[in-house]
Amino acid sequence: MKLDSPHKPYVHGRSDREAERLNYQASKLAGLLHHDTRYPLGSRVLEAACGVGAQTIILTKNSPEAEFISIDISPDSLVTAKLRVSHEGITNVMFRQADVYHLPFRPETFDHIFVCFLLEHLPDPLLSLKNLKDILRPGGTITVIEGDHGSALFYPDSMNAHKVIDCLVQLQREMGGNALIGRELGHLMTDAGFMNIAVSPRIVYADRNRPESVEGVKNIFIAMVEGVRELAITRGLVDTETWEKGIRDLYRTTEEDGTFCYTFIKAVGNKES
Amino acid sequence: MKLDSPHKPYVHGRSDREAERLNYQASKLAGLLHHDTRYPLGSRVLEAACGVGAQTIILTKNSPEAEFISIDISPDSLVTAKLRVSHEGITNVMFRQADVYHLPFRPETFDHIFVCFLLEHLPDPLLSLKNLKDILRPGGTITVIEGDHGSALFYPDSMNAHKVIDCLVQLQREMGGNALIGRELGHLMTDAGFMNIAVSPRIVYADRNRPESVEGVKNIFIAMVEGVRELAITRGLVDTETWEKGIRDLYRTTEEDGTFCYTFIKAVGNKES
Repeated sequence: MKLDSPHKPYVHGRSDREAERLNYQASKLAGLLHHDTRYPLGSRVLEAACGVGAQTIILTKNSPEAEFISIDISPDSLVTAKLRVSHEGITNVMFRQADVYHLPFRPETFDHIFVCFLLEHLPDPLLSLKNLKDILRPGGTITVIEGDHGSALFYPDSMNAHKVIDCLVQLQREMGGNALIGRELGHLMTDAGFMNIAVSPRIVYADRNRPESVEGVKNIFIAMVEGVRELAITRGLVDTETWEKGIRDLYRTTEEDGTFCYTFIKAVGNKES
Repeated sequence: MKLDSPHKPYVHGRSDREAERLNYQASKLAGLLHHDTRYPLGSRVLEAACGVGAQTIILTKNSPEAEFISIDISPDSLVTAKLRVSHEGITNVMFRQADVYHLPFRPETFDHIFVCFLLEHLPDPLLSLKNLKDILRPGGTITVIEGDHGSALFYPDSMNAHKVIDCLVQLQREMGGNALIGRELGHLMTDAGFMNIAVSPRIVYADRNRPESVEGVKNIFIAMVEGVRELAITRGLVDTETWEKGIRDLYRTTEEDGTFCYTFIKAVGNKES
């Protein structure tokens, strides 16, 4: 759900509307995803990749005594991230243009590393984890958070709704990513050589008794799927009628008797000390 | 995952092996599903339906000062349940043969009601909830726990594995049940007229760092799917080769780099006081 290259086509696009969606998403999911991530006084933390700074705001506020370096491959996104951070009066983060395949840091530079919604867009998530491990100090932690679109569970169930979600999965795959990566974090962290790996699913559940979560489903998940409409239809992955039925059925799950579940996966591990 | 009629064909069968699976399941999931269910001194609690008593043991031990009545439609299951309870030295439960369509209790008899893995087997879960509401006192609580086989999320993903799971879903549907009922608990409880409904998903996650959960996936979930092998093949829902590939792929998710997630849904509500 974030930028993977400044020039390459990006599955969610780079519009202001998308930046707004990312900020909304980060703030709504802050408790669920960040509540158990706190870094102590003076620790050096790398955030890779920060995109427009949606997670950066939460991360740096939650650990005000840690020092953050947030990198992203996109200079434009970094401009936006810097503005947001400055607007929020946050002073414990520095930004740098870089990507996880070319990390401009010496080995064992960081005490901790934080990665959110990045691996899903990378053709080689394992290599990127290994690269990040190189610049982590022995005993340091890495925290990785990803979604998994295969976890979307809803009522009323609808084949067309699954079809439009599958369009996003397929487009992301064509661009080298993997929208079903959540379930793979366990083995990716292990294969990258991290120790003491703890994987924990974080589930969002929405029904009419949780109106805020219902708004989240509309503005985060369905908005994200809607973002690939043109691409999916142009590429012939789906016809217009099926697309519209599928989107209507997704919105239907946010009405009256509807329910919607989505699972994020958070994984934490250590570099051997 | 429990009996719905003493004579009707039952999707999981009534073998000793199935009873063993149910007990294993209940003990492994006790923390996840029961940790927030405690009934106070002297409260009258109905468990509907108790089957072979797998949940009864946990329920009654967790609330030793409450008085339980556990009903089931199957006299044979009740015999097994009584033996188990007696073997465990549990004295705060009485058993009675009854079903949720014919409840032999006066209105407002119970302070609390507990239902686990029952609604998924009933042709009319809404009617059964309404019947249970009648015998609940105003202000009393109902707790309902169900699975949802659509929540099974695993790595490596496999179309054949999804096919064998779908066989179970389809067979359960043919027998009048709904193996995807977890996502419906919210609206069923609302439609039945309960108040202050709180729905919470409970997720099981298994990978090699959680060997106990991996054993649970094999002995609970995969064993349950394997239980419908003959029925699925005889009915022509799947051919033998696909079945065996699907089961092999399910076991594959419990090896090395595999992961497996499953979501149970717990819903608690009140009768208006």
